[in-house]
Amino acid sequence: MRTSNYLLSTLKETPNDAEVVSHQLMLRAGMIRKLASGLYTWLPTGLRVLRKVENIVREEINNAGAVEILMPVVQPFELWEETGRSEKMGAELLRFTDRHDRPFVLSPTAEEVVTSLVRNEVSSYKQLPLNLYQIQTKFRDERRPRFGAMRAREFSMMDAYSFDIDKDGLKQSYDAMHEAYCKAFDRMGLDYRPVLADTGAIGGSGSHEFHVLAESGEDLIAFSSESDYAANIEKAEALAPAMELAAPTQEMTLVDTPNAKTIAELVEQHGLAIEKTVKTLFVKASDEVDADIIALIIRGDHELNEVKAENLKEVASPLEMATEEEIRALIGAGPGSLGPVGLELPFIVDRTVAVMSDFGAGANVDDKHYFGINWGRDVELGQVEDLRNVVEGDPSPCGQGTIQLKRGIEVGHIFQLGTNYSEKMNCGVLGPDGKNVILEMGCYGIGVSRVVASAIEQNHDENGIIWPAALAPFQVSIVPMNMAKSAEVKEAAEKLYADLTAAGIDVLFDDRKERPGVMFADHELVGIPHTIVIGNRSLENGEMEYKDRRAGTKEGVAVADIVEFVKQKLA
Amino acid sequence: MRTSNYLLSTLKETPNDAEVVSHQLMLRAGMIRKLASGLYTWLPTGLRVLRKVENIVREEINNAGAVEILMPVVQPFELWEETGRSEKMGAELLRFTDRHDRPFVLSPTAEEVVTSLVRNEVSSYKQLPLNLYQIQTKFRDERRPRFGAMRAREFSMMDAYSFDIDKDGLKQSYDAMHEAYCKAFDRMGLDYRPVLADTGAIGGSGSHEFHVLAESGEDLIAFSSESDYAANIEKAEALAPAMELAAPTQEMTLVDTPNAKTIAELVEQHGLAIEKTVKTLFVKASDEVDADIIALIIRGDHELNEVKAENLKEVASPLEMATEEEIRALIGAGPGSLGPVGLELPFIVDRTVAVMSDFGAGANVDDKHYFGINWGRDVELGQVEDLRNVVEGDPSPCGQGTIQLKRGIEVGHIFQLGTNYSEKMNCGVLGPDGKNVILEMGCYGIGVSRVVASAIEQNHDENGIIWPAALAPFQVSIVPMNMAKSAEVKEAAEKLYADLTAAGIDVLFDDRKERPGVMFADHELVGIPHTIVIGNRSLENGEMEYKDRRAGTKEGVAVADIVEFVKQKLA
Repeated sequence: MRTSNYLLSTLKETPNDAEVVSHQLMLRAGMIRKLASGLYTWLPTGLRVLRKVENIVREEINNAGAVEILMPVVQPFELWEETGRSEKMGAELLRFTDRHDRPFVLSPTAEEVVTSLVRNEVSSYKQLPLNLYQIQTKFRDERRPRFGAMRAREFSMMDAYSFDIDKDGLKQSYDAMHEAYCKAFDRMGLDYRPVLADTGAIGGSGSHEFHVLAESGEDLIAFSSESDYAANIEKAEALAPAMELAAPTQEMTLVDTPNAKTIAELVEQHGLAIEKTVKTLFVKASDEVDADIIALIIRGDHELNEVKAENLKEVASPLEMATEEEIRALIGAGPGSLGPVGLELPFIVDRTVAVMSDFGAGANVDDKHYFGINWGRDVELGQVEDLRNVVEGDPSPCGQGTIQLKRGIEVGHIFQLGTNYSEKMNCGVLGPDGKNVILEMGCYGIGVSRVVASAIEQNHDENGIIWPAALAPFQVSIVPMNMAKSAEVKEAAEKLYADLTAAGIDVLFDDRKERPGVMFADHELVGIPHTIVIGNRSLENGEMEYKDRRAGTKEGVAVADIVEFVKQKLA
Repeated sequence: MRTSNYLLSTLKETPNDAEVVSHQLMLRAGMIRKLASGLYTWLPTGLRVLRKVENIVREEINNAGAVEILMPVVQPFELWEETGRSEKMGAELLRFTDRHDRPFVLSPTAEEVVTSLVRNEVSSYKQLPLNLYQIQTKFRDERRPRFGAMRAREFSMMDAYSFDIDKDGLKQSYDAMHEAYCKAFDRMGLDYRPVLADTGAIGGSGSHEFHVLAESGEDLIAFSSESDYAANIEKAEALAPAMELAAPTQEMTLVDTPNAKTIAELVEQHGLAIEKTVKTLFVKASDEVDADIIALIIRGDHELNEVKAENLKEVASPLEMATEEEIRALIGAGPGSLGPVGLELPFIVDRTVAVMSDFGAGANVDDKHYFGINWGRDVELGQVEDLRNVVEGDPSPCGQGTIQLKRGIEVGHIFQLGTNYSEKMNCGVLGPDGKNVILEMGCYGIGVSRVVASAIEQNHDENGIIWPAALAPFQVSIVPMNMAKSAEVKEAAEKLYADLTAAGIDVLFDDRKERPGVMFADHELVGIPHTIVIGNRSLENGEMEYKDRRAGTKEGVAVADIVEFVKQKLA
């Protein structure tokens, strides 16, 4: 590609509204342009990378035995009613009506469409296993689209759906996709981890997320220091402490705490260790409980794990915190003064709290706390659950080592759905015994456009992007110095361009009438891994100059060897 | 690909609701499935063909110097207001609002988005010429989607947009795209013609449509018997007859015609030659005319060319026929009794009618006609225009030969837009003299999914599809006879599959436990060009059997030569 035929569109300045590095660099490198909130046009440089990601994903998913199809972006709303997801998705599911007032949605995913396809097309177990996938535009009407391609409303996603006759088949399909994902992300040169993920409301028997590790990631991943255990913090189990409940050493006392509305104030004003305090959180109870509100009690320095809470049968889903008004109406005290002693509500205690002794908590009276509380003596312990996020140093739930936390960007998700959709949509086949069998489904997603952004989060420096070889929009660039004034430079550059192109290499030939400094800056910003600089002075010595974007090094290479040299670099 | 891993999904019966052959065969061959009216899922076989078309188009458009981008399917409605197309498109433009009540549309095309992109990204004539294209999902909310992929609501389209500093540049960009289209359709092995097309309301200085010739085509194409002139009948000029206006030979008489409401009845009941009758059509006038209605007069056996009529400055656009009520209110007679004599309305006469003498027409009184009308003597001729469709035998407007008509399916359209969009959207650059220049635009479309359907219209027989080599979903299929019972057949089939796959050939290996007849029928239906049949009996003779789908022939080929034989066939 000659720059003169191309739309390079690099920007010197970092746009104001871009918060994360990948968004900034995708704008500056001319990869994307905003059309409207969460809607981006992919410029030539961005699209080249997007297609490289797509092609790697396609090849590996094909290798895993899946078959590509293409489902419409516009889907009938009625299919979403069949599974009840029309309500669950809320406002993210963009609805509209056509000219005949029939309701449709823009596809955020395609479980319903593919299940309706398979129930029509597949009638016998002999046609299984079947794994159908597409790489197609998706739309989610995010309340707050942000970070450019990272959380856009319209985006490119690979979504696959496997259909098996039984759980063993599902497990095999799932494992094949797990392996395909690893191969794909390996080929892309990304530092990623498959991590255990919560299966949430859908249930199902297993799920992994694939995270690209990056400090800007929105998710926290818990790793073991000793094993390959890795889980989304939503999922990572906080083990019950190995210690026994200690015997009381203090009497319980009612203390005036007029200025301690928070744990921090309580700790500071009353000399209590934070590990000797608890937080009592009121949330909406589910129908399982004979009360509207249920209390969750965690240690003062811990955080409630909302996913774990929501997964409890006693807690309403989605999780909803009680308002201050509701709390006052119920207890007569505000949220800063709640605690288990004398509480006339059901409550659940975190595993760590269950072994605490001599601790402080609100007295359910404004401006008063109890200190020296002990389970059993002062209040019955009752139900104990894992309610909190793990923290660094916790023992790993795998039994080896301790927990370490890193940030990740979720780029893929695989999920054993089981019969959740197939049952609702009556998707079954005749089994070997001639009886109808509801199919076991898996679903598998890769956020293709998000992979592009996450690769940049992991591969950049102050001058721009540093693409992994497999994702670079161009493998090599040619910078001719003052080509307009030197027939030798022009001839050498044209010849090199022709030779490299003939060798099947993606080359950007910068034939603009620009100063070399401008070209260097652009190529570094765009992140082309290898650059060949052609100037009169080095040509006189029979050489061209090679620059390595990642290493930041340069070296002279004999003109006669240059094509072979580049091929070696790409090998 | 092994059939056991694939979703072949062929149908024995022709679905009831499929009217045209391509729709029937795309359903039967398992290429597409209807999700809702005008919405189709592309099954693996269909998607393979779609991708082959896409890739050929992409390569040739790239070769023409265009650069690929990807614009969102969801576009802000406000851009469509900027060009006024929001109204012109009518209900085909699907509108909706997002969760924040902001209006958007589903993209039927992208002139607005690409023009807004270029006005932001391109500032100097040095960055031109620029041709940006995408291959992306489009949506048009057709009132009556039909014929499957031929006129779907959601479909895949290549749309390109060229930007030049002047008309010469536009012409060059246009010619390059014309050539690229020809190369692409040539490679696809289609019988197609570039034909002159109407530039309609957009104006612009030139336009060609690309039609695949097929009897089921919705368009009529006018060809010259002697030259390479070809035009959409909408555009094909009906030359003024070479003859002079003959002198009157009859007196004008008022005749009672109580039962002649149509030209056919008039001719039958009153012994008039149809070439001696005229039809007088009332249409809405434009603001140019000092009347609400204007009459258009064509010969009794001719058809009004609505596009030519609409392009007249005297006629309102879009063309609207007057209702019977409006006609009666104006004239006091019904539409069956209209004519030029005594008509108190402006009228325009077709070129052919202008040289008619002694002809009959309505008398603007119910149940009465004038016979023996002559221009000048009985009524003034006034404005003469080309109003009618050409008919077979008309002299060709190119000056050579006569007109012949064939049916075509429009699969591509190229258009010199000029400054129509760029002016409205203020898309200009600094020219060589430092002054702002509004850009000259061209736009170019290929209906990728429609190409697939049109290729089938042109390439099929009673057994199914006969793919041109470049579009076939698989190049070769392997049919092993009774593989389950013969280790020799299985071994030979597996080896051939491995060898052909290693040679980079797209092979369907039919490893189902089906009778050979079922496999043959499926492969013929799907239209795989080359089939290798492997059976015990021929293997004993050291042979496999080769079947040619298009020729319908078969021959034995030595096992040792089979891979080379197939390669030769594909070369």
